Amino acid sequence: MDKQRQFDKQLDNLKKKLIHMAALVESMIDKTISELVSRDEHLAEKVPQYEEELNRLQIEIDEQALTLLATQQPVAADLRFIVAATKINSDLERIGDLVINITENVHVLAQQPPLKPLIDIPRMADLARRMVRESLDAFVGEDPLLAQSVIMTDDQVDALKEQVIRELLTYMISDPRAIERALALIFISRHLERIADHATNIAEDVIYMIQGRDVRHPRTPKERPASEEG
Amino acid sequence: MDKQRQFDKQLDNLKKKLIHMAALVESMIDKTISELVSRDEHLAEKVPQYEEELNRLQIEIDEQALTLLATQQPVAADLRFIVAATKINSDLERIGDLVINITENVHVLAQQPPLKPLIDIPRMADLARRMVRESLDAFVGEDPLLAQSVIMTDDQVDALKEQVIRELLTYMISDPRAIERALALIFISRHLERIADHATNIAEDVIYMIQGRDVRHPRTPKERPASEEG
Repeated sequence: MDKQRQFDKQLDNLKKKLIHMAALVESMIDKTISELVSRDEHLAEKVPQYEEELNRLQIEIDEQALTLLATQQPVAADLRFIVAATKINSDLERIGDLVINITENVHVLAQQPPLKPLIDIPRMADLARRMVRESLDAFVGEDPLLAQSVIMTDDQVDALKEQVIRELLTYMISDPRAIERALALIFISRHLERIADHATNIAEDVIYMIQGRDVRHPRTPKERPASEEG
Repeated sequence: MDKQRQFDKQLDNLKKKLIHMAALVESMIDKTISELVSRDEHLAEKVPQYEEELNRLQIEIDEQALTLLATQQPVAADLRFIVAATKINSDLERIGDLVINITENVHVLAQQPPLKPLIDIPRMADLARRMVRESLDAFVGEDPLLAQSVIMTDDQVDALKEQVIRELLTYMISDPRAIERALALIFISRHLERIADHATNIAEDVIYMIQGRDVRHPRTPKERPASEEG
């Protein structure tokens, strides 16, 4: 195998590992929110295992990327690809941490009667999960339009989070016994919002990788996709 | 100037810019918490400007790092230095975002009478600010012991956050009129905790850079410094 083909194969391997990480993350979000909604405590039991695998993969990918940078000395598009891969790697690992945080709140909620039927939080989770998948699809397919649509979806997640917090505040104010549960749900909605922010970061890195332009700090503060309020 | 000296100068320039970013971040934390404590709304008025400067610096540093990787094709220690610089860069920029989130909560609190004297939150802010500075000192001085002490301090910040949340919960339960303010203070304490987590990430990257060993995922979950609970 010639040197270039060897190198391409290594880049491909990096890509496959990131797709695997994203699949793990998607499954973690899915299982955790299913457990939250159904109150069936077995649904998310594999989540901590998945997170350990994420951590292992993160270190592997970082080391491979570093080795490629050192030994292949890539330039231009290959270089931007590897830099993007290391950033996506760290975003996916942080999403894994956030899902673990969600599971902790889910456990708190499982020990108490349900506060209210959950509608907006599962919707946020669905959007966030889809954003993760599509940001990775945009990376793999080098698709700036898909990346752009991920960035736009972030506004919907932010709006849902505001709505969730406003509603839960009314529960807290009207009944002190609701406070602990409402707070756990507020934390879950904020973790989901941050997962969406990480997917947005990935989408921005994809656009930067493809077009070499930086979309991370648009001029109008209104559009800032990575900001977190609250 | 020979090629090596030119290159060293560029690395030095990268280092200086990161130190400048860290100084901005420190000042942003300081001004924001001073405004929170004193309720003097002019103290933090420059914070959004500083954040814009952070964003500008982040893009500059990323581009310089990419150019260095592409044109100088560094290996070994120089390569690890540049990779660490890009990671520290993104941690500092995210700390800037978190301080902006804190200012939003400070503004909410400014419109209402004080809930309680603030002791633990300024203490958390002091610790977080010191962690940012010392993680950068460890980077510049290539000092793994200092980096290790930053990582240890993170446990104190986590403990303070738990204490703050527990105390504020009692305020919320005993008086519904306290809920909004208590929630704003809870959010501030969580943002401070996350600033400390980013400083911890920087310290871990510094250790990895110096020793080539990865301290990000120690085996005992208890020690995980970057986890965020709640």
